[in-house]
Amino acid sequence: MPEELAPTREVDVRIAPNGGLALDGGEILPAAVQRVTFYGTPRGDGSNVVLVTHALTGSSRVAEWWPGVVGRGCLIDTDRLCVVGINALGGCYGSTGPASPAADGRPYGSRFPVLTVRDLVRAQRLALRALGIERIAAVIGGSLGGMQALAWGVESPEAVDLVVAIGASGALTPLSVGVSSTARAAIANDPNFKGGDYYDGEPPAAGLDIARRLGMLTYKSERLLLERFGRRSDRKGEEPQAGLWARFDVEGYLAHQGEIFVRRIDANTHLVLSKAMELFDLDRDYGSAETAGARMLARTVLVGIGSDWLFPPTQVHQTWRRLRDGGADAAYLEMASDHGHDAFLAEPESLSRLLAPMLAPLYARERRADGALA
Amino acid sequence: MPEELAPTREVDVRIAPNGGLALDGGEILPAAVQRVTFYGTPRGDGSNVVLVTHALTGSSRVAEWWPGVVGRGCLIDTDRLCVVGINALGGCYGSTGPASPAADGRPYGSRFPVLTVRDLVRAQRLALRALGIERIAAVIGGSLGGMQALAWGVESPEAVDLVVAIGASGALTPLSVGVSSTARAAIANDPNFKGGDYYDGEPPAAGLDIARRLGMLTYKSERLLLERFGRRSDRKGEEPQAGLWARFDVEGYLAHQGEIFVRRIDANTHLVLSKAMELFDLDRDYGSAETAGARMLARTVLVGIGSDWLFPPTQVHQTWRRLRDGGADAAYLEMASDHGHDAFLAEPESLSRLLAPMLAPLYARERRADGALA
Repeated sequence: MPEELAPTREVDVRIAPNGGLALDGGEILPAAVQRVTFYGTPRGDGSNVVLVTHALTGSSRVAEWWPGVVGRGCLIDTDRLCVVGINALGGCYGSTGPASPAADGRPYGSRFPVLTVRDLVRAQRLALRALGIERIAAVIGGSLGGMQALAWGVESPEAVDLVVAIGASGALTPLSVGVSSTARAAIANDPNFKGGDYYDGEPPAAGLDIARRLGMLTYKSERLLLERFGRRSDRKGEEPQAGLWARFDVEGYLAHQGEIFVRRIDANTHLVLSKAMELFDLDRDYGSAETAGARMLARTVLVGIGSDWLFPPTQVHQTWRRLRDGGADAAYLEMASDHGHDAFLAEPESLSRLLAPMLAPLYARERRADGALA
Repeated sequence: MPEELAPTREVDVRIAPNGGLALDGGEILPAAVQRVTFYGTPRGDGSNVVLVTHALTGSSRVAEWWPGVVGRGCLIDTDRLCVVGINALGGCYGSTGPASPAADGRPYGSRFPVLTVRDLVRAQRLALRALGIERIAAVIGGSLGGMQALAWGVESPEAVDLVVAIGASGALTPLSVGVSSTARAAIANDPNFKGGDYYDGEPPAAGLDIARRLGMLTYKSERLLLERFGRRSDRKGEEPQAGLWARFDVEGYLAHQGEIFVRRIDANTHLVLSKAMELFDLDRDYGSAETAGARMLARTVLVGIGSDWLFPPTQVHQTWRRLRDGGADAAYLEMASDHGHDAFLAEPESLSRLLAPMLAPLYARERRADGALA
């Protein structure tokens, strides 16, 4: 595993300082901030810039959460490209989100608007523009990050040459919407949630814990869980039959994941970004996925993950076919994996082997890295 | 759809009046009640008796919750057989459960013991015995009811001739344990739950609602949800992008299911029976599924449901193979369905066509129904 990279530069960019950011839902978000992290230095024409978009729980520090994929000598090679991460609008890692102060100085909380994936992408575009970057070479992401990559290709066809969307389709299935919205309902039910205005009290940790457990289940495949946990008792020694709350190993794992999560994610961020993911829909947003495909100019690569049940590969394949039928220059690849949705994070070598030929054009035009690395 | 049948007889049987019922967990449950419903009249030798075991949310009124399968002229024909239903121990439809008074006259609540599927089945056996029925012709059930049917075959091999388990395997997968235990955790997190001792206050309805939504998602297939709801807006007119809590149609459906559920199920019953389902494990309980199979004498039929992800047909098939390898006279059938786990309830005609040949021996030895129907 390559060692973790320090960013070359990290900056908080104020976007739309005049008039604010007009959102898909009709609201205006005044003076939003985007936290932008650079690994490497962008060329003036942006031709060495690869934007990596994050999933539900990521940050702008893309080399931290995507080790083995982003880094020195990796698939997305920080020695040869300028890799950029931006904390999504609505996030809790530096960009404007529900915990940020509104005009009255108090956190937005329940007043934070509904966001769409298009809103996230427009904010990213504005942030890059403010930094002098009008075009980028590529946008690459998995899950919600993959939806953002697709939205970049449709919304800013002239601004990007290569779109790579991994474990992401044109819309969540109703099963996935069902799980995601039930996870959100569990947060809303937490008495600490207070409709979203909990910043002066305890956070809704119990609800967020449930949401995370459900998330983790959708990120893993049945087979992975069978292999990793089987029906073993909790590794801390509990026998599951010892009491109503005594656990199997898989329960201990989920509880542990929930526990970590509530310390690092703001519940409102989870709600806002989950909702954006549920809403993303090429058919709803553009009339049809084919129409969306007709707008795309970038080379577009969709990657289905064999054992993914959050974004079933059949759905990713269908999105590819429809974008292509609409006229997009699109390719479909399938990542053979037993891991489930999370394979794009958990199996960097396999993903890198699969995608290396697709990213080769990025490197062909780079003679050498010309950015100074910290 | 055949019209609903009135039971011939319904009786609350006190079992283990002396000494109480010894449970797998080591506790003794004093003087438990079993609510038993008859459709038809049992012959003295029990040779016309078919016990129908219920799933998580069922009752002894089997013709009510399994229309089209149990009834006049149906697969399980109340005109020709004596059909018996028993509310499971731990239930909330007449049998002793967490809401029942303990020795001190107050509801058990948190004091109710952990139950296993074997405990449920032993209680049923004792109830039938108390009614003079030592042997039965068949035991048939789906889901948790199918686990009970299998446990009948292993625990009381001499007492039953035919075991039919539908959408049930030798143990839940860790994915299913994960979803089920997360649903339980959502109940426990409800501030009204009070550790299970909520009977003098409001019930933990919000937690039970989340549990039911998750349950419903595991009972339906991805394809069914796609066909039935797609990505349509809530049928009451909400547009999902209108707000964080505005809904897709699938969310409205889940919320509606949750709402109905909290009025008809006691949360503690849901916890106790879910836990029994999570614990059931032929390997843990008998050393191996093969050893369990070696104990079985009844003709045993396992039915996998094609699109079931709570009890994947691959798991049901594996249980069948292992029981058979152990020596059981077992058959495997697969119900082709896009519906998901609930197909055994939702597609009675299809299930009946599949199982009719397996139930034919029951009818061959019945010349005519000899019970009086109410």
